Amino acid sequence: MVKFIYRPGNNNGDCSSFVGFPLVRNISELQQDSYGIGGLSHITVAGSLLLGLKEVEAWLETFAPGSRTPIHRHSCEEVFVVLKGSGTLYLASSAHKSPGKPEEHFISPNSTFHIPVNDVHQVWNSNAHEDLQVLVIISRPPVKVFIYSDWSMPHTAAKLKFPIFWDEQCFEEPLHDEL
Amino acid sequence: MVKFIYRPGNNNGDCSSFVGFPLVRNISELQQDSYGIGGLSHITVAGSLLLGLKEVEAWLETFAPGSRTPIHRHSCEEVFVVLKGSGTLYLASSAHKSPGKPEEHFISPNSTFHIPVNDVHQVWNSNAHEDLQVLVIISRPPVKVFIYSDWSMPHTAAKLKFPIFWDEQCFEEPLHDEL
Repeated sequence: MVKFIYRPGNNNGDCSSFVGFPLVRNISELQQDSYGIGGLSHITVAGSLLLGLKEVEAWLETFAPGSRTPIHRHSCEEVFVVLKGSGTLYLASSAHKSPGKPEEHFISPNSTFHIPVNDVHQVWNSNAHEDLQVLVIISRPPVKVFIYSDWSMPHTAAKLKFPIFWDEQCFEEPLHDEL
Repeated sequence: MVKFIYRPGNNNGDCSSFVGFPLVRNISELQQDSYGIGGLSHITVAGSLLLGLKEVEAWLETFAPGSRTPIHRHSCEEVFVVLKGSGTLYLASSAHKSPGKPEEHFISPNSTFHIPVNDVHQVWNSNAHEDLQVLVIISRPPVKVFIYSDWSMPHTAAKLKFPIFWDEQCFEEPLHDEL
């Protein structure tokens, strides 16, 4: 069994203690990165790894035209608020063996929606001319995400990505439990 | 003992079932009210009473110049993102018998901050010329708030306000438990 231990980080990505971290921070001065995902800008606005939060986490994410999240699910609650741009939310239930053809929902500025726990979803900037910017709220951080290669993949075949891309640098080396 | 039971509501304030509630909603079309608090506009963007969320809740709140929250505390986590305007965050720890003189923090657009669990706080639009608009995220809804009349009031004297103003209409009549 592999265990991950995480340690609080700061906004410079060096994961030192959050003691002394300023209480009021300017989001535009926080760490922003694509984490290797084309077209993505991710900022952890308030995070479990950054600030020691245990129950909620907030992200500011910007998707360039054509870019999107992976098809994925997680067992936490998630709320989106669309700040800029427009796009498409794809959503499928977890009630069957695989997600199947998802519902499509148009999203635009001032849209808000939540993802039912464990429903499979993808957010896609389907607007060719404008960035899509969303504020994302999740419960029970750090998030454990299961990623699908397509909508026909069985739920049991979805691949766990933990820690998620932007949490990786603040995790200690995994401990190998001999038991 | 008094028990509160809540029932899911919709965005018209009539607290009917959220079955059939649209998944993607426009925030500007959601219920907005002052709930009797001068200078406040509150919108529950995603809520436990509105949508059945159990772990997170999001509010959009606008404070007219000079208006503010009560001095209060709660045992959930809370994250703020300042969207417009500026103001002052007052914050005091819960480590002593009463809050005492609070720290003062200036907040402005793009500011984010979180309130440590049970710390006593107040957000004040101290800008005479502009509304202050914040997105507020809380964990473990529905929130139970303890309100202080001033910063010298002992923590034990702070008054429980539950359900909070905007949750009242979605609570059933309290049940009186004969035991």
